[in-house]
Amino acid sequence: MAPSSEQKINVISLRDLERQAEKVLPPFGFHFIAGGSGDEWTLRENEAAFDRVVIEPRFLSGVKVPDTTTTILGAKLALPVLAAPMGMHGFAHAGKEAGTAKGTAAAGALYVTPSVSNLSVEDIAAANGTGARWFQIYFPEDPGYAREQLQRAKAAGYTAIVLTVDATSFGNRERAARLGLKPPPHLGFGNMPKSPALAGQNPDLQKKDLTFADVAFCQKESGLPVLVKGVLTPGLAAECVKQGCAGVWVSNHGGRQLDHSPATFAVLPKIADAVGGKIPIVVDSGIRRGQDVFRCLALGASVVGIGRPLLYGLALGGAQGVEAVFQRLKAELVMTMQLAGTASVDKITADYVAPAVRS
Amino acid sequence: MAPSSEQKINVISLRDLERQAEKVLPPFGFHFIAGGSGDEWTLRENEAAFDRVVIEPRFLSGVKVPDTTTTILGAKLALPVLAAPMGMHGFAHAGKEAGTAKGTAAAGALYVTPSVSNLSVEDIAAANGTGARWFQIYFPEDPGYAREQLQRAKAAGYTAIVLTVDATSFGNRERAARLGLKPPPHLGFGNMPKSPALAGQNPDLQKKDLTFADVAFCQKESGLPVLVKGVLTPGLAAECVKQGCAGVWVSNHGGRQLDHSPATFAVLPKIADAVGGKIPIVVDSGIRRGQDVFRCLALGASVVGIGRPLLYGLALGGAQGVEAVFQRLKAELVMTMQLAGTASVDKITADYVAPAVRS
Amino acid sequence: MAPSSEQKINVISLRDLERQAEKVLPPFGFHFIAGGSGDEWTLRENEAAFDRVVIEPRFLSGVKVPDTTTTILGAKLALPVLAAPMGMHGFAHAGKEAGTAKGTAAAGALYVTPSVSNLSVEDIAAANGTGARWFQIYFPEDPGYAREQLQRAKAAGYTAIVLTVDATSFGNRERAARLGLKPPPHLGFGNMPKSPALAGQNPDLQKKDLTFADVAFCQKESGLPVLVKGVLTPGLAAECVKQGCAGVWVSNHGGRQLDHSPATFAVLPKIADAVGGKIPIVVDSGIRRGQDVFRCLALGASVVGIGRPLLYGLALGGAQGVEAVFQRLKAELVMTMQLAGTASVDKITADYVAPAVRS
Amino acid sequence: MAPSSEQKINVISLRDLERQAEKVLPPFGFHFIAGGSGDEWTLRENEAAFDRVVIEPRFLSGVKVPDTTTTILGAKLALPVLAAPMGMHGFAHAGKEAGTAKGTAAAGALYVTPSVSNLSVEDIAAANGTGARWFQIYFPEDPGYAREQLQRAKAAGYTAIVLTVDATSFGNRERAARLGLKPPPHLGFGNMPKSPALAGQNPDLQKKDLTFADVAFCQKESGLPVLVKGVLTPGLAAECVKQGCAGVWVSNHGGRQLDHSPATFAVLPKIADAVGGKIPIVVDSGIRRGQDVFRCLALGASVVGIGRPLLYGLALGGAQGVEAVFQRLKAELVMTMQLAGTASVDKITADYVAPAVRS
Repeated sequence: MAPSSEQKINVISLRDLERQAEKVLPPFGFHFIAGGSGDEWTLRENEAAFDRVVIEPRFLSGVKVPDTTTTILGAKLALPVLAAPMGMHGFAHAGKEAGTAKGTAAAGALYVTPSVSNLSVEDIAAANGTGARWFQIYFPEDPGYAREQLQRAKAAGYTAIVLTVDATSFGNRERAARLGLKPPPHLGFGNMPKSPALAGQNPDLQKKDLTFADVAFCQKESGLPVLVKGVLTPGLAAECVKQGCAGVWVSNHGGRQLDHSPATFAVLPKIADAVGGKIPIVVDSGIRRGQDVFRCLALGASVVGIGRPLLYGLALGGAQGVEAVFQRLKAELVMTMQLAGTASVDKITADYVAPAVRS
Repeated sequence: MAPSSEQKINVISLRDLERQAEKVLPPFGFHFIAGGSGDEWTLRENEAAFDRVVIEPRFLSGVKVPDTTTTILGAKLALPVLAAPMGMHGFAHAGKEAGTAKGTAAAGALYVTPSVSNLSVEDIAAANGTGARWFQIYFPEDPGYAREQLQRAKAAGYTAIVLTVDATSFGNRERAARLGLKPPPHLGFGNMPKSPALAGQNPDLQKKDLTFADVAFCQKESGLPVLVKGVLTPGLAAECVKQGCAGVWVSNHGGRQLDHSPATFAVLPKIADAVGGKIPIVVDSGIRRGQDVFRCLALGASVVGIGRPLLYGLALGGAQGVEAVFQRLKAELVMTMQLAGTASVDKITADYVAPAVRS
Repeated sequence: MAPSSEQKINVISLRDLERQAEKVLPPFGFHFIAGGSGDEWTLRENEAAFDRVVIEPRFLSGVKVPDTTTTILGAKLALPVLAAPMGMHGFAHAGKEAGTAKGTAAAGALYVTPSVSNLSVEDIAAANGTGARWFQIYFPEDPGYAREQLQRAKAAGYTAIVLTVDATSFGNRERAARLGLKPPPHLGFGNMPKSPALAGQNPDLQKKDLTFADVAFCQKESGLPVLVKGVLTPGLAAECVKQGCAGVWVSNHGGRQLDHSPATFAVLPKIADAVGGKIPIVVDSGIRRGQDVFRCLALGASVVGIGRPLLYGLALGGAQGVEAVFQRLKAELVMTMQLAGTASVDKITADYVAPAVRS
Repeated sequence: MAPSSEQKINVISLRDLERQAEKVLPPFGFHFIAGGSGDEWTLRENEAAFDRVVIEPRFLSGVKVPDTTTTILGAKLALPVLAAPMGMHGFAHAGKEAGTAKGTAAAGALYVTPSVSNLSVEDIAAANGTGARWFQIYFPEDPGYAREQLQRAKAAGYTAIVLTVDATSFGNRERAARLGLKPPPHLGFGNMPKSPALAGQNPDLQKKDLTFADVAFCQKESGLPVLVKGVLTPGLAAECVKQGCAGVWVSNHGGRQLDHSPATFAVLPKIADAVGGKIPIVVDSGIRRGQDVFRCLALGASVVGIGRPLLYGLALGGAQGVEAVFQRLKAELVMTMQLAGTASVDKITADYVAPAVRS
């Protein structure tokens, strides 16, 4: 059974949380969260890619109190970090998505609700309170059901739509089978269809042949800005700009979908070139340190997303655990900015990074 | 004694099969199959080379049901994968090559019978039934014996000849000696000479000074298309085209012959350049994932061959085990094509791959 | 409790000392010394960077007795090595900084006293005797307190000031927390303010918004040459030259401050280019071998600093242990110079090194 | 006590011998032989450098029986391999150098006697019989003693002189100290001075300030061809050609002298360029496989030297063990040449190798 504790936790580093969470989580839940797909090459590469770029600090810059605040699509954030959408927080904590949404708001970060949440978008919005929040959708087979979800999200105060495009087939997550673990009883989908016409629809049944027409559908039906999540190539990024997307989200789904797709940090620079500053870029997958946030921003990201560490924090301390994860990451970012000599997040540029191995 | 079970097996991934097969196989047989030559550098490098190339998926392509079928030299296949020729399946299963041939046909893949099989080409053909099949020959010292084998193969419905050129000396496979393992009694060669004039000939006695004259001999005596197996250089590939070969087979014999020869995936692009699309290219050695199939096709292969995983499947489940291996690989290829946005195998091109480390 | 032995020690290599010291030091003290910040990437990279450059010896050069002496800012040294400033030697040995200062002088090396020493600059100077010594300062929040420290240092015979610029925020050293270790009672700061007007000032409270004005302050108030410690970029190095600094000290604080900043050895060549020989360059962080000293000098350093190995030597043998560390490093440098064919330290140039992997 | 068995041994691979020899050798002797200097980086790199170059076999070349014979400085060899000079074979076997010299002759290889042998050059020559042999000298402090050694070697049928230039200082071999091993009683130097005028001279007391004048001395006093051993740079190689040396010997002393000097295989190509085919090149350090011999010849070596594996063979089987090591290496070379399609050693060129990782 998933933990249910609500308590302050001491986060030494986001990396340490995995070992700590493994001790309190049931094995299936832990490996569902921690695992990737296939050989988990992309999972490992997401973190390893950061080791190929160093930060070149500029000392004697006179920076005293770095300002980590930023704004994205009108949302003001205490730090340039958001909670990436992850399905079924009930695996991590009995309070499900409510704790994550609450802890994220407490930290002044942005919360992105997954469509395959255990709680409903309305309940999550209630927990998130005055926090900034977006809604992530897996586009369902039935457009009517897509419309219902988009409208419910808008009504619940979500201010942007994130359309995930890298999951039109399930990734081959093999850990549970390899370890012989069985899933617990399903914890429920909070966003099951409400309209009688949609009976039988299910958030897990997604449309496979997605195109930009579906992006346009989301834009039209919600009237909200739409970001495309899963961008790994400059070509798709440029097309997003052309099609009027509100943002590009660079992600490989935390190494959980197509194994052997590239590390997001490795492809970020070329994608930033293609976007050319016209729309904001979010990047996730593998970010564990303030230095990682800094390096992503240096190479073109506007905001970064974190995932697994939040679920570990949730498992260990509920909403307070989630907040502590953000606070630890913020403290590391402040330290990095202080030492690098960057007074605010907009000043973090490619001038502050370099290849680790010089030719 | 080799296993003899006939049963469905659950293939989590082709990589997992090695550990599973080790539990059911006698040690000599297992290490004969799993081992490579020398330091096993090429054996490891065959798989490692894939980690240097990533797949760049094109999301929002509107692909719904990727088509994995293909045709090679007139043979229609359900997936672009064939069973590479491997000697003496009796080490893996009491049913010897019959199970492999049967399971390959059931999966709609192409079966390549080795000349050093335990069963005869006729018995293997019978097990293969209406499946597509080619015959691989180690050219013997006596051309009369070569002729006999080619004619028997043709008569048994094999539609192409594969001449292996990388085994004119035994590779130094050292595992058994290092582990102190003794081979079991010989399980017999199914293709011992039938003509009285060939008495004393043996499939293990091969001609060492092979040239293209021997390729021409195979072409002439069989009247079938001939592929050269063991191509590792653009020069030999270009000569194959010039000499009228039906196909080029890029292989280092699964790392079992000349250790420190290159990974096939590493040399594939230059060979594809040399071939220029004039004849099909088969590639084997190190392929374990649908993503590997995809990457080989992207860099110029028409069809890929797999080896050891089939023998592990055979050991674990007989013909059903072999079929399950193909089905798992096919499922991974479908997932890869779906996510990459390639509707059919001919659309898998170099545009979908890139170096893992960008400069 | 920290060790207190005073004895000759046998130094097989500086690298061996860590394991030996771990046996005699209390865990908190050991990990405080041995650890780095964050993921300890920079800590490891500091040593790993040396493996990318080889020494190309010039045999038959007729060198008989290499001369390791050198001069930096007027100080004559028996070897081009100094004791880098490290806080609180009381963690390593009951005699605190006195043993380090004494052993360094005995070896003919230069001692750099940290401002956050357990003993006072005066006591350390007394232990150092006629040895060469500089004073390292963490610039405090109160300039008056900075002035007092600079004046005390000058009065005690320190001949240069080293201003550390890479520690305007504490590095996230996580070992103690991760291991659950508690610090022992504080061993005292030897340089607590003496002037009544400075009551409440503390060496640990440092100015965060350092600029070159603070460098100028140190120059003016001490009347001594000032080196900037923590330089990791050519830009800051060039500015140091322009601002009249007496030297540039390339350091990442032994991997204890901003993790994922570059290895000092990796950035040394570009910094040497920027300095252009106008002022001396000190480099520390990761130097463990005579070959490392040689390679640093080859790529532009005038003198190198070592840190942790001295504290291990101190822990194992007091002043004699410190001296033995320098003597071992000197012996390795003599061997390296003899074999490389360099008769004196000024002859160690980039001609003697090359990339380990040739293209 | 060192082993004394005389017996045939089964050499699976030269690499396997280390583990086997460790079981029969006293620890000091084993680690004296197996160890390198310093961090043993160069020791490891000597073997690792081979992994960066692959062999590109040319199949269908019609090669039947590759010819491994070669000639160097008039000596006809059954294979392009010699026994590199190593001191004090008494650590490996009670028969000291006699077994090595005898086994080398039996294999048709060339034996290079070290000046610091336990047996005398005359006794070693007697054991070597009609085999080809050279004499390696560590130039002593007293030229008269050098003259005596050179004249004794010439009189005993040694046909070339090898002057080692990379050992003017002892390398820092640290294994014995680290493991707490004590050397056994000295086994004697076979080449102690005979002339009364040389009383007190000792092969271990070497001249430190070697120059080409000492090379000329060896040439003049012996009247024999002189090779310089220890060449690691194109500059020294070119100078050897200019000074009339008979050959260049690329070596880093098996990683036993200056640690962090380059792998010999890594520097071989540039040295071969500098020599331009004017004099033969010998290369040693790290060669363990027929493929290594092949790759060295491909990149410019005339003959390769092997060291440690011979002492392991000696320890395990005396002269028969030594011969078996050469025979195993020869068998691997024959296999490599057969598969690569090179009929004789002069046909092994750079066309047969390529970088393992292609750009």
